Amino acid sequence: MNTTGKVIRCRAAILWKPGTPLSIEEIEVAPPKVKEVRIKIVATGLCGTEMKMLANKIPHNNYPIILGHEGAGIVESVGEGVSTVKTGDKVITLFLPQCGECTSCVNPGGNFCIQFKQSETGLMSDGTSRFTCKGKPVYHFGNTSTFSEYTVIKEISVTKIDAVAPLEKVCLVSCGFSTGYGAAITTAKVTPRSTCAVFGLGGVGLSVIMGCKAAGAARIIGVDINKDKFEKAKEVGATECINPQDYKKPIQEVLFDMTGAGVEFCFEVIGNPETVVAALASCHESHGVCVIVGLLTAGVQLNISGRLFFSGRSLKGSVLGGWKSRQDVSKLVSDYMAKKFNLDPLITHTLNLDKINEAVELMKTGKCIRCVLLL
Amino acid sequence: MNTTGKVIRCRAAILWKPGTPLSIEEIEVAPPKVKEVRIKIVATGLCGTEMKMLANKIPHNNYPIILGHEGAGIVESVGEGVSTVKTGDKVITLFLPQCGECTSCVNPGGNFCIQFKQSETGLMSDGTSRFTCKGKPVYHFGNTSTFSEYTVIKEISVTKIDAVAPLEKVCLVSCGFSTGYGAAITTAKVTPRSTCAVFGLGGVGLSVIMGCKAAGAARIIGVDINKDKFEKAKEVGATECINPQDYKKPIQEVLFDMTGAGVEFCFEVIGNPETVVAALASCHESHGVCVIVGLLTAGVQLNISGRLFFSGRSLKGSVLGGWKSRQDVSKLVSDYMAKKFNLDPLITHTLNLDKINEAVELMKTGKCIRCVLLL
Ligand SMILES: NC(=O)c1ccc[n+]([C@@H]2O[C@H](COP(=O)([O-])OP(=O)(O)OC[C@H]3O[C@@H](n4cnc5c(N)ncnc54)[C@H](O)[C@@H]3O)[C@@H](O)[C@H]2O)c1
Ligand SMILES: NC(=O)c1ccc[n+]([C@@H]2O[C@H](COP(=O)([O-])OP(=O)(O)OC[C@H]3O[C@@H](n4cnc5c(N)ncnc54)[C@H](O)[C@@H]3O)[C@@H](O)[C@H]2O)c1
Ligand SMILES: [Zn+2]
Ligand SMILES: [Zn+2]
Ligand SMILES: [Zn+2]
Ligand SMILES: [Zn+2]
Repeated sequence: MNTTGKVIRCRAAILWKPGTPLSIEEIEVAPPKVKEVRIKIVATGLCGTEMKMLANKIPHNNYPIILGHEGAGIVESVGEGVSTVKTGDKVITLFLPQCGECTSCVNPGGNFCIQFKQSETGLMSDGTSRFTCKGKPVYHFGNTSTFSEYTVIKEISVTKIDAVAPLEKVCLVSCGFSTGYGAAITTAKVTPRSTCAVFGLGGVGLSVIMGCKAAGAARIIGVDINKDKFEKAKEVGATECINPQDYKKPIQEVLFDMTGAGVEFCFEVIGNPETVVAALASCHESHGVCVIVGLLTAGVQLNISGRLFFSGRSLKGSVLGGWKSRQDVSKLVSDYMAKKFNLDPLITHTLNLDKINEAVELMKTGKCIRCVLLL
Repeated sequence: MNTTGKVIRCRAAILWKPGTPLSIEEIEVAPPKVKEVRIKIVATGLCGTEMKMLANKIPHNNYPIILGHEGAGIVESVGEGVSTVKTGDKVITLFLPQCGECTSCVNPGGNFCIQFKQSETGLMSDGTSRFTCKGKPVYHFGNTSTFSEYTVIKEISVTKIDAVAPLEKVCLVSCGFSTGYGAAITTAKVTPRSTCAVFGLGGVGLSVIMGCKAAGAARIIGVDINKDKFEKAKEVGATECINPQDYKKPIQEVLFDMTGAGVEFCFEVIGNPETVVAALASCHESHGVCVIVGLLTAGVQLNISGRLFFSGRSLKGSVLGGWKSRQDVSKLVSDYMAKKFNLDPLITHTLNLDKINEAVELMKTGKCIRCVLLL
């Protein structure tokens, strides 16, 4: 059945208001407009960022909303003026667009496309939504809204991938894997034989470990308050793991004791201002580089002793691992197909979209790294 | 007269206690011990860091003390085991040593030699001072104590320079010039055609401008609350200058208005926590790099909104411009001799050591960039 140009009725997980469970509903998805693409989502991860949304730690006013940004699917139809993807193409959804024209996109060192901000409105570029449920418009999330069988996304937020890529795996390249792996490779530029530490061993933190290992780090110290994460961290490359709660000393002092002079590269992959400061203080005073990967919620202030910088330390932000989204995510999928990295250790659970609240529960209790939802 | 092995009586500027003027006194300078060098200081600058010491903004307990670190002179004699300099060599004093062995010295990206910390005791490595005045021991400062006709310095804090270098000029390569120039070239790695901003147009800030220009920056915006600094800033390479006090908006918004998307490289060369935060916020959100050059006094906290980092900004510390002190300062003097940069614009005044309190006054009132003191 050709659905081009028609409204599609399908199922989606809706968040009606903050603090409530997600609710599976029938929705209507309008056809894509100019420079938009309608996608049949096949698989989507559930990222730490959604967990923060569900815990209402990222305050906003866009309700009801369809969350989800770690998605992979197949193009159902394209709007006017779309030239880079066509019906039937396998694609990955990108919360970070790449317009190719803004000052971030044209700079070799930047990836924070100015069009990202448009997505914070929860509406498409024309100021309207493509989703309705029970007669009410439903907001988009993160340019993507992948917790839906069909979604409409701007062309600049979609990238075409290898036609034989397994969508139920490479959906993680959409966010979690690429964010962590790139934080090590692209943002920090981890050097061979270096010593690294990773604070937070969720899906993103484990991907940072994979990146450090791929870059040739000699020592990779995992740090988490949940020791159940240690086994998997070691499986993907951590050389040792520590729990800050096992020590009386602040964790930065523990890391100095372990390494002699601090770590050369440190990653905060939790999104907590105190652990950002501890991660910076754990770095080598002269050339240590600390990368903030965790999402600090709006209004959060970092309180940092100025003297931490005097001797030469660096503190860097990193979004989507510093990758230029459209061009690099597509290449990363090719790298996956070429077996340059393995996504299996990240996928601890697979459930149908109907079971999304179970997936949320698994993440909350720390029993899961990534739960891939199938649609 | 051969003074080797003998105590030398000479004149020095002593700070007896915080908040008092410097006082010219006759002192005794003991011969250099193992791995130490005694130097006849010929010329020394007076750096913003000494101004902070004199304003008692860097609290310590080492009184009486001989300040001064921006020095150049001639080796009078060397202690046992010294192999890299000999009597008669022209040298530059280095507040930052280069031991060549610590984890900072051996890392290509680091320069904060671990031996720096020893200097904070105000004593030589054996726990004693080489200076006495009126029968009392006098503390050393910054490994150097250049406000004295003779001083004793560790070999690792001295570098031999070109025998024909003019000491009354190249003394500025000891700190101010190298700190600023290197912050642009070595720490920030300013790129051709980029847009830069420099907060604070003292001797160090002007040297940052020279570094940005040498690196090929297209636009260099000087920022200072003293508009008398603007002419000189333009002379050395600023393309425009602004005074934050002329605007109602915060300076970061003014810089966004001027540049469209923020500056690619921003330098804080004042040493004030509020201007550090403003400098970071003035950077391009995606790839902007902010370098802290100004000295934040002990205990000062930076209060930074976490969201400034999310999009990819970096904040870096820089000490002595990121140069490895012994090897690079010596090369910078050769570059000066090869006319790769000019120090004259930085030297607005020259006075005899006797007039040091006049030099302090000139700095305080903002009438002077660098006053070189001759001994
Ligand atoms: N910058 C980006 O582009 C980007 C992209 C994706 C995710 N994120 C952020 O990355 C972070 C991690 O995402 P994830 O999916 O791996 O989340 P996750 O919830 O799976 O993992 C977080 C881990 O941190 C651990 N943790 C919590 N508090 C801790 C503490 N005080 N000390 C040590 N460990 C602690 C938890 O036990 C857990 O293992 C989140 O903040 C998410 O929002 C950022
Ligand atoms: N990191 C290092 O290795 C290193 C080395 C040398 C000096 N320093 C530090 O660099 C800083 C500058 O040194 P300098 O010798 O050029 O000092 P300086 O006193 O000559 O210059 C400081 C300039 O900042 C300006 N200023 C003060 N408050 C300001 C404000 N709120 N906004 C804008 N401009 C303001 C002043 O008018 C002056 O022109 C000092 O903090 C010094 O301690 C650091
Ligand atoms: Zn994510
Ligand atoms: Zn863009
Ligand atoms: Zn050293
Ligand atoms: Zn100085």
